[in-house]
Amino acid sequence: MTDPFIQQRLFCPGPTPIPFSHQLAMLEGNIYHRSSKFRDIFTSCTERLKPIFGTAETPLILTCSGTGVMEAAVVNLTSERDQVLVVSAGKFGERWGEIAESYGCQVSCLTVPWGESPTPEQLLKEIEKHKNLKAIFLQANETSTAVQFSLGELLPAVRKVFAGIIVIDAISYLVAQPMKMDEWQIDCVVSGSQKGFSIPPGLGFIGLSKKAWQSLSKRPKHYFDLLGERQGQALGKPSFTPAISLIMGLNQALETIGTVGLPNIHKHHEKLARAARSAIAAMGLDPLAKSNPSQVVTGFYLPEGFSASEFKKHLTAQYGAVLAGGQGPLQNRVLRIAHLGLIDRFHLLTGLAAIEFGLKDMGIQAATGNGVKAAMEELAKPS
Amino acid sequence: MTDPFIQQRLFCPGPTPIPFSHQLAMLEGNIYHRSSKFRDIFTSCTERLKPIFGTAETPLILTCSGTGVMEAAVVNLTSERDQVLVVSAGKFGERWGEIAESYGCQVSCLTVPWGESPTPEQLLKEIEKHKNLKAIFLQANETSTAVQFSLGELLPAVRKVFAGIIVIDAISYLVAQPMKMDEWQIDCVVSGSQKGFSIPPGLGFIGLSKKAWQSLSKRPKHYFDLLGERQGQALGKPSFTPAISLIMGLNQALETIGTVGLPNIHKHHEKLARAARSAIAAMGLDPLAKSNPSQVVTGFYLPEGFSASEFKKHLTAQYGAVLAGGQGPLQNRVLRIAHLGLIDRFHLLTGLAAIEFGLKDMGIQAATGNGVKAAMEELAKPS
Repeated sequence: MTDPFIQQRLFCPGPTPIPFSHQLAMLEGNIYHRSSKFRDIFTSCTERLKPIFGTAETPLILTCSGTGVMEAAVVNLTSERDQVLVVSAGKFGERWGEIAESYGCQVSCLTVPWGESPTPEQLLKEIEKHKNLKAIFLQANETSTAVQFSLGELLPAVRKVFAGIIVIDAISYLVAQPMKMDEWQIDCVVSGSQKGFSIPPGLGFIGLSKKAWQSLSKRPKHYFDLLGERQGQALGKPSFTPAISLIMGLNQALETIGTVGLPNIHKHHEKLARAARSAIAAMGLDPLAKSNPSQVVTGFYLPEGFSASEFKKHLTAQYGAVLAGGQGPLQNRVLRIAHLGLIDRFHLLTGLAAIEFGLKDMGIQAATGNGVKAAMEELAKPS
Repeated sequence: MTDPFIQQRLFCPGPTPIPFSHQLAMLEGNIYHRSSKFRDIFTSCTERLKPIFGTAETPLILTCSGTGVMEAAVVNLTSERDQVLVVSAGKFGERWGEIAESYGCQVSCLTVPWGESPTPEQLLKEIEKHKNLKAIFLQANETSTAVQFSLGELLPAVRKVFAGIIVIDAISYLVAQPMKMDEWQIDCVVSGSQKGFSIPPGLGFIGLSKKAWQSLSKRPKHYFDLLGERQGQALGKPSFTPAISLIMGLNQALETIGTVGLPNIHKHHEKLARAARSAIAAMGLDPLAKSNPSQVVTGFYLPEGFSASEFKKHLTAQYGAVLAGGQGPLQNRVLRIAHLGLIDRFHLLTGLAAIEFGLKDMGIQAATGNGVKAAMEELAKPS
């Protein structure tokens, strides 16, 4: 019988759990978006996004999902028939390709096997092939394969040979890990509200470099017209009705982030990631990431003969633990547990405990608790 | 440094954690208590308290703390110079004595060592000493020592020799464990909102037997005049302004309790209690209860030379886990972890994990995770 006491907890890599203080802030939705009070809150939000993006330029806030800001990047920074290179190491790399193709770009793809991340050599070789390359699109964290790209290594290498536009999908990366947009000479970084910020989906964030602002496309655009947004948002006036309650949540999230401090948040995610990886190893499961495992989500294979989809359903139904399954070729083979957002170590432990209860139920493992114990040992180490 | 991500979690034996559905219900506070809508909700609440008390009589809801309903019981069921017997096995047994003395009763005390529960023989021997005994006051669960009384054994034995008033403090017992007020011939059961009901403090519940209603005192009383309340509450009209938002929470809690079912709730608390005791044993700590351990709270000694107060403070400051310390003679020697209310197994695991992190920090234990593993093994057993 299903345990009727079980409360649902989110371990999918977005939406992430929402702290009570963020929920409370979002209850304050009775605010007019054309009031000075709202304008002050809005400009304070965009201002406080700057260190999170690692840029001196002010990022913009759009009311849309992560895919929306990805599209905004393509629409504003490319023109029809532009040659663009997409690094595809998973589902979200593929998405860059699909959007760019929708908008008539000539898309080349550097395909990296799922579970791996691109090397500087691979990227440089691919860039060399294209004389008129306008832009490169890649991920900071390929959420679908639980792999992080080594931006600090890739981007300096690329910048030695490529002066065009570099666009980074940092949707599951921002806040959780250090983004150095200006230092790494990135032209566009996109993100969303429902990952590291620990508020619900509905807000997209986009930062553009000085160079990007000077090379905007002339494509038709309206909702995603970033130049128009930039002019309004400088005065706290987004062009269109913003998601007011989410802005109130963002305001509180930025307060939390400011209080905790970005370096602490980065270290925290790394510590939780180590604990998750230790637990998965102690459970005898194979990790999904072959190298560069993500600091915000850990993927693992179920043993041959077991359905990951069934296991995922079981964890939700029996233990309220909502994990993510595999996408594309990984469907039914892997599960992913997120350790992303303003959660604490105990939240992660409950997700790991749920996995172990499930492994026992399914007859995959006889023992229970070895994984959680391994995670606790990792967490108990001085940070 | 304190981990800034830590969220606070309650493991004190009241107030207990409040499920989100209860919190949401309590946001609906814009209700007039003299409206028909409120009257319907109120009478539905008192009606649904009956199976929880195990009585055919309708219990009353008062706006007060647990001590308030204890006083209401004494004020309405005793008169000055009445001989009363108090079973004192801890702090809340002592409280019965203090209240009865305040009201001029002649109080005899059956003192049971802290950590133990009374036997039928002890009770019968004490009753024999007093020819004109009017009432007996005891606990269902002595929260301060984490000991449960064997009501199903004690009361039938007592009823063979005693026809007077029996009053039970079931504040931390109700909902969590089966109360059989009519079957056990109890005349008065008192409880409160902040324990098994998983809503905040502020409501007291009191059930009286037919016999109790016929033997009300003539003492001066106003706020705690149960006869007056009974007349009003039958129509959904408490005598004085009720704690409206808490009634809305109670309404939702009773909905939850009805959906889950009392027998499931009782078994759930027993399972969590077994898990907590396994964990404490696996941590090498001595249990506080010598016999009849409580099903809602588990007490344990810290090893000699360690301050339980310091340890308690450390768990709250470092891990957000709010446990309860020892009271009276147990102060600074023991801690108590509650597994009470409409919580799930994962909540308990986080409290046990916090204890283990703390034991390591304090140098009491080198290992981490053995207790949680033992609890998980217990929880994974078929129920």
